[in-house]
Amino acid sequence: MEERGISRAVIGRLPRYYRYLGELLEAGVERISSSDLSKKMRVTASQIRQDLNNFGGFGQQGYGYNVKYLYTEIGKILGLNREHPIIIIGAGNLGQALANYASFEKSGFTLKGLFDVNPRLEGVSIRGIPVRMMDDLEEFLQKNEIEIAILTLPKSKAIEVAELVIENGIRAIWNFAHTDLNLPEDVIVENVHLSDSLMKLSYNISRYNEEHQK
Amino acid sequence: MEERGISRAVIGRLPRYYRYLGELLEAGVERISSSDLSKKMRVTASQIRQDLNNFGGFGQQGYGYNVKYLYTEIGKILGLNREHPIIIIGAGNLGQALANYASFEKSGFTLKGLFDVNPRLEGVSIRGIPVRMMDDLEEFLQKNEIEIAILTLPKSKAIEVAELVIENGIRAIWNFAHTDLNLPEDVIVENVHLSDSLMKLSYNISRYNEEHQK
Repeated sequence: MEERGISRAVIGRLPRYYRYLGELLEAGVERISSSDLSKKMRVTASQIRQDLNNFGGFGQQGYGYNVKYLYTEIGKILGLNREHPIIIIGAGNLGQALANYASFEKSGFTLKGLFDVNPRLEGVSIRGIPVRMMDDLEEFLQKNEIEIAILTLPKSKAIEVAELVIENGIRAIWNFAHTDLNLPEDVIVENVHLSDSLMKLSYNISRYNEEHQK
Repeated sequence: MEERGISRAVIGRLPRYYRYLGELLEAGVERISSSDLSKKMRVTASQIRQDLNNFGGFGQQGYGYNVKYLYTEIGKILGLNREHPIIIIGAGNLGQALANYASFEKSGFTLKGLFDVNPRLEGVSIRGIPVRMMDDLEEFLQKNEIEIAILTLPKSKAIEVAELVIENGIRAIWNFAHTDLNLPEDVIVENVHLSDSLMKLSYNISRYNEEHQK
Protein backbone atom coordinates (compact mmCIF):
# COMPACT_ATOMS: atom_id res chain seq x y z
CA MET A 1 0.00 0.00 0.00
CA GLU A 2 1.37 3.40 -0.97
CA GLU A 3 1.10 5.99 1.76
CA ARG A 4 2.39 9.07 0.02
CA GLY A 5 5.24 6.75 -0.92
CA ILE A 6 6.16 6.10 2.71
CA SER A 7 6.31 2.48 3.75
CA ARG A 8 4.82 1.09 6.92
CA ALA A 9 8.34 0.06 8.00
CA VAL A 10 9.59 3.66 7.85
CA ILE A 11 6.57 4.90 9.82
CA GLY A 12 7.19 2.19 12.39
CA ARG A 13 10.71 3.58 12.90
CA LEU A 14 9.71 7.26 13.24
CA PRO A 15 8.81 7.12 16.96
CA ARG A 16 12.28 5.75 17.65
CA TYR A 17 13.93 8.62 15.74
CA TYR A 18 11.72 11.00 17.66
CA ARG A 19 12.79 9.45 20.97
CA TYR A 20 16.51 9.63 20.18
CA LEU A 21 16.24 13.19 18.91
CA GLY A 22 14.40 14.12 22.10
CA GLU A 23 17.24 12.66 24.15
CA LEU A 24 19.80 14.63 22.10
CA LEU A 25 17.78 17.82 22.59
CA GLU A 26 17.67 17.25 26.35
CA ALA A 27 21.44 16.77 26.28
CA GLY A 28 21.83 20.11 24.49
CA VAL A 29 23.05 18.67 21.16
CA GLU A 30 22.24 21.03 18.26
CA ARG A 31 23.54 19.12 15.23
CA ILE A 32 24.27 15.48 14.58
CA SER A 33 25.70 13.68 11.56
CA SER A 34 23.94 10.62 10.20
CA SER A 35 27.00 8.55 11.16
CA ASP A 36 26.91 9.70 14.82
CA LEU A 37 23.15 9.16 14.97
CA SER A 38 23.74 5.76 13.40
CA LYS A 39 26.16 4.72 16.16
CA LYS A 40 23.75 5.83 18.86
CA MET A 41 20.75 4.10 17.31
CA ARG A 42 22.60 0.99 16.14
CA VAL A 43 21.25 1.21 12.61
CA THR A 44 23.26 1.99 9.48
CA ALA A 45 23.85 5.60 8.45
CA SER A 46 22.46 4.80 5.01
CA GLN A 47 19.22 3.52 6.58
CA ILE A 48 18.90 6.81 8.46
CA ARG A 49 19.52 8.87 5.33
CA GLN A 50 17.04 6.81 3.33
CA ASP A 51 14.38 6.98 6.04
CA LEU A 52 14.65 10.73 6.49
CA ASN A 53 14.81 11.36 2.74
CA ASN A 54 11.22 10.13 2.62
CA PHE A 55 10.25 13.40 4.21
CA GLY A 56 12.28 15.58 1.92
CA GLY A 57 15.59 15.07 3.73
CA PHE A 58 16.39 17.18 6.71
CA GLY A 59 20.15 17.38 6.43
CA GLN A 60 22.66 19.17 4.30
CA GLN A 61 25.59 17.18 3.01
CA GLY A 62 28.47 17.62 5.45
CA TYR A 63 26.50 19.66 7.99
CA GLY A 64 24.50 16.89 9.64
CA TYR A 65 20.98 17.27 10.92
CA ASN A 66 19.62 20.17 12.93
CA VAL A 67 18.33 18.22 15.94
CA LYS A 68 15.57 20.59 17.00
CA TYR A 69 14.24 21.07 13.47
CA LEU A 70 14.24 17.35 12.76
CA TYR A 71 12.57 16.62 16.11
CA THR A 72 9.84 19.17 15.41
CA GLU A 73 9.22 17.97 11.86
CA ILE A 74 8.99 14.31 12.83
CA GLY A 75 6.66 15.35 15.65
CA LYS A 76 4.38 16.99 13.07
CA ILE A 77 4.41 13.89 10.85
CA LEU A 78 3.44 11.83 13.91
CA GLY A 79 0.57 14.23 14.63
CA LEU A 80 2.07 15.43 17.90
CA ASN A 81 1.48 19.07 17.05
CA ARG A 82 -2.23 18.63 17.76
CA GLU A 83 -4.08 17.92 20.98
CA HIS A 84 -5.45 14.39 21.34
CA PRO A 85 -8.15 14.22 24.03
CA ILE A 86 -8.15 10.77 25.61
CA ILE A 87 -10.12 8.73 28.10
CA ILE A 88 -8.96 5.65 29.95
CA ILE A 89 -11.44 2.85 30.52
CA GLY A 90 -10.29 0.58 33.32
CA ALA A 91 -8.74 2.46 36.24
CA GLY A 92 -6.86 -0.47 37.76
CA ASN A 93 -3.08 -0.45 38.15
CA LEU A 94 -2.36 -0.30 34.42
CA GLY A 95 -4.96 2.41 33.76
CA GLN A 96 -3.58 4.44 36.65
CA ALA A 97 -0.01 3.95 35.42
CA LEU A 98 -0.99 5.33 32.01
CA ALA A 99 -2.96 8.18 33.59
CA ASN A 100 0.15 9.16 35.52
CA TYR A 101 2.51 9.37 32.53
CA ALA A 102 3.15 13.09 32.39
CA SER A 103 5.13 12.59 29.17
CA PHE A 104 1.99 11.62 27.26
CA GLU A 105 0.43 14.95 28.23
CA LYS A 106 3.57 16.75 27.00
CA SER A 107 3.07 15.11 23.59
CA GLY A 108 -0.52 16.36 23.35
CA PHE A 109 -2.38 13.33 24.72
CA THR A 110 -4.59 15.05 27.27
CA LEU A 111 -6.48 12.92 29.77
CA LYS A 112 -10.13 14.00 29.93
CA GLY A 113 -11.77 11.11 31.74
CA LEU A 114 -11.21 7.87 33.63
CA PHE A 115 -13.84 5.14 33.90
CA ASP A 116 -14.21 1.94 35.87
CA VAL A 117 -16.87 -0.46 37.13
CA ASN A 118 -15.42 -0.70 40.62
CA PRO A 119 -17.49 1.46 43.01
CA ARG A 120 -14.52 1.67 45.41
CA LEU A 121 -12.74 3.81 42.80
CA GLU A 122 -15.62 6.26 42.44
CA GLY A 123 -14.45 9.74 43.31
CA VAL A 124 -10.77 8.79 43.47
CA SER A 125 -8.85 11.39 41.45
CA ILE A 126 -5.72 10.85 39.36
CA ARG A 127 -3.89 13.98 38.28
CA GLY A 128 -7.07 15.92 39.02
CA ILE A 129 -9.33 13.65 36.95
CA PRO A 130 -12.00 11.81 38.97
CA VAL A 131 -12.74 8.15 38.23
CA ARG A 132 -16.29 7.96 36.87
CA MET A 133 -18.53 4.92 36.78
CA MET A 134 -19.17 3.13 33.47
CA ASP A 135 -22.84 4.12 33.58
CA ASP A 136 -21.75 7.69 32.87
CA LEU A 137 -19.62 6.83 29.85
CA GLU A 138 -22.14 7.32 27.06
CA GLU A 139 -23.31 10.69 28.29
CA PHE A 140 -19.71 11.78 28.84
CA LEU A 141 -18.79 10.89 25.25
CA GLN A 142 -21.79 12.74 23.91
CA LYS A 143 -20.89 15.91 25.82
CA ASN A 144 -17.11 15.86 25.28
CA GLU A 145 -14.96 15.62 22.16
CA ILE A 146 -12.78 12.61 22.80
CA GLU A 147 -10.50 11.20 20.14
CA ILE A 148 -8.81 8.16 21.71
CA ALA A 149 -10.16 5.58 24.14
CA ILE A 150 -7.51 3.60 26.01
CA LEU A 151 -8.82 0.19 27.01
CA THR A 152 -7.18 -1.28 30.10
CA LEU A 153 -9.88 -3.82 30.74
CA PRO A 154 -10.12 -7.59 31.06
CA LYS A 155 -10.59 -9.19 27.65
CA SER A 156 -14.08 -10.43 28.57
CA LYS A 157 -15.32 -6.82 28.60
CA ALA A 158 -13.10 -5.25 25.96
CA ILE A 159 -15.08 -5.93 22.80
CA GLU A 160 -18.41 -4.83 24.27
CA VAL A 161 -16.88 -1.58 25.58
CA ALA A 162 -15.04 -0.96 22.29
CA GLU A 163 -18.34 -1.25 20.42
CA LEU A 164 -20.01 1.13 22.87
CA VAL A 165 -17.38 3.85 22.51
CA ILE A 166 -17.41 3.53 18.70
CA GLU A 167 -21.18 3.98 18.68
CA ASN A 168 -20.56 7.16 20.62
CA GLY A 169 -18.08 8.69 18.22
CA ILE A 170 -14.66 7.36 19.21
CA ARG A 171 -12.54 6.60 16.12
CA ALA A 172 -9.27 5.43 17.70
CA ILE A 173 -8.52 2.81 20.33
CA TRP A 174 -5.30 2.01 22.17
CA ASN A 175 -6.03 -1.52 23.29
CA PHE A 176 -4.28 -3.26 26.20
CA ALA A 177 -6.84 -6.04 26.57
CA HIS A 178 -5.41 -9.47 25.82
CA THR A 179 -7.43 -9.95 22.65
CA ASP A 180 -7.67 -8.47 19.15
CA LEU A 181 -10.82 -6.40 18.91
CA ASN A 182 -11.54 -7.08 15.22
CA LEU A 183 -13.46 -3.83 14.78
CA PRO A 184 -14.69 -2.21 11.55
CA GLU A 185 -11.89 -1.17 9.18
CA ASP A 186 -12.44 2.56 9.73
CA VAL A 187 -11.64 2.33 13.45
CA ILE A 188 -7.95 2.90 14.13
CA VAL A 189 -6.64 0.37 16.63
CA GLU A 190 -3.17 0.04 18.10
CA ASN A 191 -2.74 -3.05 20.25
CA VAL A 192 -0.27 -3.46 23.09
CA HIS A 193 -0.26 -7.18 23.75
CA LEU A 194 2.09 -7.44 26.72
CA SER A 195 2.06 -11.21 26.87
CA ASP A 196 3.03 -11.45 23.17
CA SER A 197 6.08 -9.38 24.01
CA LEU A 198 6.93 -11.53 27.03
CA MET A 199 6.66 -14.67 24.86
CA LYS A 200 9.09 -13.25 22.33
CA LEU A 201 11.51 -12.72 25.21
CA SER A 202 10.97 -16.28 26.35
CA TYR A 203 11.51 -17.62 22.82
CA ASN A 204 14.79 -15.72 22.54
CA ILE A 205 15.95 -17.08 25.91
CA SER A 206 15.21 -20.65 24.79
CA ARG A 207 17.06 -20.16 21.54
CA TYR A 208 20.03 -18.57 23.32
CA ASN A 209 20.20 -21.45 25.78
CA GLU A 210 20.09 -24.02 22.99
CA GLU A 211 22.91 -22.30 21.14
CA HIS A 212 25.16 -21.68 24.13
CA GLN A 213 24.65 -24.48 26.58
CA LYS A 214 24.24 -27.57 24.50
CA MET B 1 19.93 -14.72 9.75
CA GLU B 2 18.89 -18.36 9.66
CA GLU B 3 17.29 -19.57 12.88
CA ARG B 4 16.79 -23.22 12.15
CA GLY B 5 15.32 -21.85 8.93
CA ILE B 6 12.66 -19.88 10.80
CA SER B 7 12.44 -16.19 10.03
CA ARG B 8 12.08 -13.47 12.61
CA ALA B 9 8.73 -12.55 11.04
CA VAL B 10 7.32 -16.04 11.68
CA ILE B 11 8.57 -15.99 15.27
CA GLY B 12 6.98 -12.58 15.73
CA ARG B 13 3.62 -14.09 14.72
CA LEU B 14 3.79 -17.17 16.98
CA PRO B 15 2.49 -15.46 20.16
CA ARG B 16 -0.56 -14.37 18.21
CA TYR B 17 -1.25 -17.95 17.03
CA TYR B 18 -0.78 -19.07 20.62
CA ARG B 19 -3.28 -16.48 21.83
CA TYR B 20 -5.94 -17.43 19.26
CA LEU B 21 -5.48 -21.14 19.90
CA GLY B 22 -5.83 -20.45 23.63
CA GLU B 23 -9.13 -18.69 22.98
CA LEU B 24 -10.34 -21.62 20.85
CA LEU B 25 -9.36 -24.07 23.60
CA GLU B 26 -11.27 -22.03 26.19
CA ALA B 27 -14.28 -22.09 23.86
CA GLY B 28 -14.04 -25.89 23.66
CA VAL B 29 -13.02 -26.08 19.98
CA GLU B 30 -11.05 -29.27 19.25
CA ARG B 31 -10.21 -28.90 15.55
CA ILE B 32 -10.00 -25.95 13.22
CA SER B 33 -9.29 -25.70 9.49
CA SER B 34 -6.70 -23.24 8.25
CA SER B 35 -9.47 -21.36 6.46
CA ASP B 36 -11.56 -20.93 9.63
CA LEU B 37 -8.48 -19.90 11.60
CA SER B 38 -7.66 -17.51 8.77
CA LYS B 39 -11.04 -15.79 9.04
CA LYS B 40 -10.69 -15.41 12.80
CA MET B 41 -7.14 -14.07 12.62
CA ARG B 42 -7.64 -11.94 9.50
CA VAL B 43 -4.61 -13.38 7.75
CA THR B 44 -4.63 -15.60 4.65
CA ALA B 45 -5.00 -19.36 5.02
CA SER B 46 -1.86 -19.83 2.95
CA GLN B 47 0.10 -17.64 5.37
CA ILE B 48 -1.08 -19.83 8.24
CA ARG B 49 -0.15 -23.02 6.42
CA GLN B 50 3.27 -21.64 5.50
CA ASP B 51 3.95 -20.38 9.02
CA LEU B 52 2.99 -23.64 10.70
CA ASN B 53 4.86 -25.72 8.12
CA ASN B 54 8.05 -24.19 9.53
CA PHE B 55 7.53 -26.42 12.53
CA GLY B 56 6.85 -29.59 10.62
CA GLY B 57 3.19 -28.80 9.90
CA PHE B 58 0.61 -29.63 12.48
CA GLY B 59 -2.36 -30.41 10.31
CA GLN B 60 -3.49 -33.21 8.08
CA GLN B 61 -4.93 -32.28 4.70
CA GLY B 62 -8.71 -32.08 5.08
CA TYR B 63 -8.74 -32.65 8.84
CA GLY B 64 -7.63 -29.25 10.04
CA TYR B 65 -5.49 -28.63 13.08
CA ASN B 66 -5.84 -30.28 16.46
CA VAL B 67 -6.19 -27.14 18.60
CA LYS B 68 -4.82 -28.52 21.84
CA TYR B 69 -1.83 -30.21 20.17
CA LEU B 70 -0.95 -27.09 18.18
CA TYR B 71 -1.33 -24.87 21.26
CA THR B 72 0.97 -27.13 23.27
CA GLU B 73 3.61 -27.39 20.53
CA ILE B 74 3.71 -23.64 19.90
CA GLY B 75 3.95 -23.16 23.66
CA LYS B 76 7.04 -25.39 23.69
CA ILE B 77 8.64 -23.48 20.82
CA LEU B 78 8.02 -20.26 22.76
CA GLY B 79 9.68 -21.78 25.83
CA LEU B 80 6.47 -21.75 27.87
CA ASN B 81 6.96 -25.33 29.04
CA ARG B 82 9.70 -24.16 31.41
CA GLU B 83 9.55 -22.00 34.51
CA HIS B 84 10.91 -18.48 34.12
CA PRO B 85 11.67 -16.92 37.51
CA ILE B 86 11.23 -13.14 37.30
CA ILE B 87 11.75 -10.07 39.40
CA ILE B 88 10.16 -6.67 38.87
CA ILE B 89 12.25 -3.58 39.54
CA GLY B 90 10.03 -0.56 40.05
CA ALA B 91 6.91 -1.30 42.09
CA GLY B 92 4.88 1.72 40.98
CA ASN B 93 1.54 1.37 39.20
CA LEU B 94 2.99 -0.34 36.14
CA GLY B 95 5.17 -2.73 38.16
CA GLN B 96 2.17 -3.59 40.34
CA ALA B 97 -0.02 -4.09 37.28
CA LEU B 98 2.49 -6.59 35.86
CA ALA B 99 2.88 -8.29 39.25
CA ASN B 100 -0.86 -8.82 39.32
CA TYR B 101 -1.19 -10.50 35.92
CA ALA B 102 -2.12 -14.02 36.95
CA SER B 103 -1.90 -15.09 33.31
CA PHE B 104 1.87 -14.58 33.26
CA GLU B 105 2.18 -17.02 36.15
CA LYS B 106 0.07 -19.53 34.24
CA SER B 107 2.56 -19.34 31.35
CA GLY B 108 5.48 -20.11 33.66
CA PHE B 109 6.64 -16.58 34.49
CA THR B 110 6.84 -16.84 38.26
CA LEU B 111 7.29 -13.66 40.29
CA LYS B 112 10.08 -14.12 42.84
CA GLY B 113 10.79 -10.56 43.92
CA LEU B 114 9.70 -6.94 43.71
CA PHE B 115 12.06 -4.01 44.25
CA ASP B 116 11.68 -0.27 44.63
CA VAL B 117 13.50 2.74 46.06
CA ASN B 118 10.40 4.18 47.71
CA PRO B 119 10.51 3.43 51.48
CA ARG B 120 6.73 3.84 51.66
CA LEU B 121 6.41 0.62 49.63
CA GLU B 122 8.68 -1.39 51.93
CA GLY B 123 6.80 -4.37 53.33
CA VAL B 124 3.79 -3.92 51.03
CA SER B 125 2.99 -7.32 49.53
CA ILE B 126 1.62 -8.06 46.07
CA ARG B 127 0.33 -11.57 45.52
CA GLY B 128 2.29 -12.63 48.58
CA ILE B 129 5.58 -11.09 47.40
CA PRO B 130 6.90 -8.28 49.62
CA VAL B 131 8.38 -5.16 48.02
CA ARG B 132 12.09 -5.07 48.90
CA MET B 133 14.36 -2.05 48.85
CA MET B 134 16.95 -1.67 46.08
CA ASP B 135 19.79 -2.07 48.59
CA ASP B 136 18.82 -5.74 48.90
CA LEU B 137 18.84 -6.42 45.15
CA GLU B 138 22.42 -7.66 44.69
CA GLU B 139 22.27 -10.08 47.59
CA PHE B 140 18.86 -11.31 46.43
CA LEU B 141 20.20 -12.04 42.94
CA GLN B 142 23.18 -13.90 44.35
CA LYS B 143 20.98 -16.11 46.52
CA ASN B 144 18.16 -16.76 44.01
CA GLU B 145 18.16 -18.06 40.46
CA ILE B 146 16.38 -15.35 38.51
CA GLU B 147 16.12 -15.42 34.75
CA ILE B 148 14.26 -12.26 33.76
CA ALA B 149 14.36 -8.75 35.25
CA ILE B 150 11.39 -6.56 34.37
CA LEU B 151 12.35 -2.90 34.48
CA THR B 152 9.48 -0.55 35.24
CA LEU B 153 11.68 2.37 36.18
CA PRO B 154 12.18 5.96 35.05
CA LYS B 155 14.65 6.11 32.18
CA SER B 156 17.18 8.04 34.27
CA LYS B 157 17.73 4.93 36.43
CA ALA B 158 17.16 2.17 33.90
CA ILE B 159 20.64 1.78 32.40
CA GLU B 160 22.41 1.79 35.76
CA VAL B 161 20.02 -0.83 37.15
CA ALA B 162 20.24 -2.93 33.99
CA GLU B 163 24.03 -3.02 34.32
CA LEU B 164 23.75 -3.98 37.98
CA VAL B 165 21.44 -6.93 37.34
CA ILE B 166 23.60 -8.15 34.46
CA GLU B 167 26.68 -8.08 36.70
CA ASN B 168 24.68 -10.28 39.04
CA GLY B 169 23.78 -12.94 36.52
CA ILE B 170 20.57 -11.78 34.83
CA ARG B 171 20.61 -12.59 31.09
CA ALA B 172 17.20 -11.31 29.99
CA ILE B 173 15.44 -7.97 30.45
CA TRP B 174 11.90 -6.92 29.72
CA ASN B 175 12.32 -3.18 29.52
CA PHE B 176 9.50 -0.67 29.99
CA ALA B 177 11.76 2.34 30.56
CA HIS B 178 11.41 4.96 27.86
CA THR B 179 14.91 4.38 26.44
CA ASP B 180 16.85 1.70 24.61
CA LEU B 181 19.31 0.12 27.00
CA ASN B 182 22.05 -0.65 24.44
CA LEU B 183 23.44 -3.52 26.46
CA PRO B 184 26.06 -6.13 25.42
CA GLU B 185 24.90 -8.37 22.56
CA ASP B 186 24.59 -11.46 24.75
CA VAL B 187 21.90 -9.89 26.94
CA ILE B 188 18.40 -10.59 25.64
CA VAL B 189 16.26 -7.48 25.74
CA GLU B 190 12.65 -7.03 24.77
CA ASN B 191 11.49 -3.43 24.87
CA VAL B 192 7.93 -2.24 25.43
CA HIS B 193 8.04 1.41 24.42
CA LEU B 194 4.50 2.52 25.18
CA SER B 195 4.92 6.01 23.80
CA ASP B 196 6.20 4.62 20.47
CA SER B 197 2.95 2.70 20.22
CA LEU B 198 0.86 5.76 21.11
CA MET B 199 2.69 7.77 18.41
CA LYS B 200 1.89 5.15 15.78
CA LEU B 201 -1.75 5.52 16.78
CA SER B 202 -1.48 9.28 16.49
CA TYR B 203 0.19 9.01 13.07
CA ASN B 204 -2.61 6.76 11.83
CA ILE B 205 -5.24 9.20 13.10
CA SER B 206 -3.57 12.08 11.26
CA ARG B 207 -3.34 10.10 8.06
CA TYR B 208 -6.98 9.00 8.36
CA ASN B 209 -8.11 12.58 8.92
CA GLU B 210 -6.15 13.79 5.88
CA GLU B 211 -7.68 11.15 3.66
CA HIS B 212 -11.26 11.51 4.86
CA GLN B 213 -11.80 15.11 5.82
CA LYS B 214 -9.89 17.15 3.32
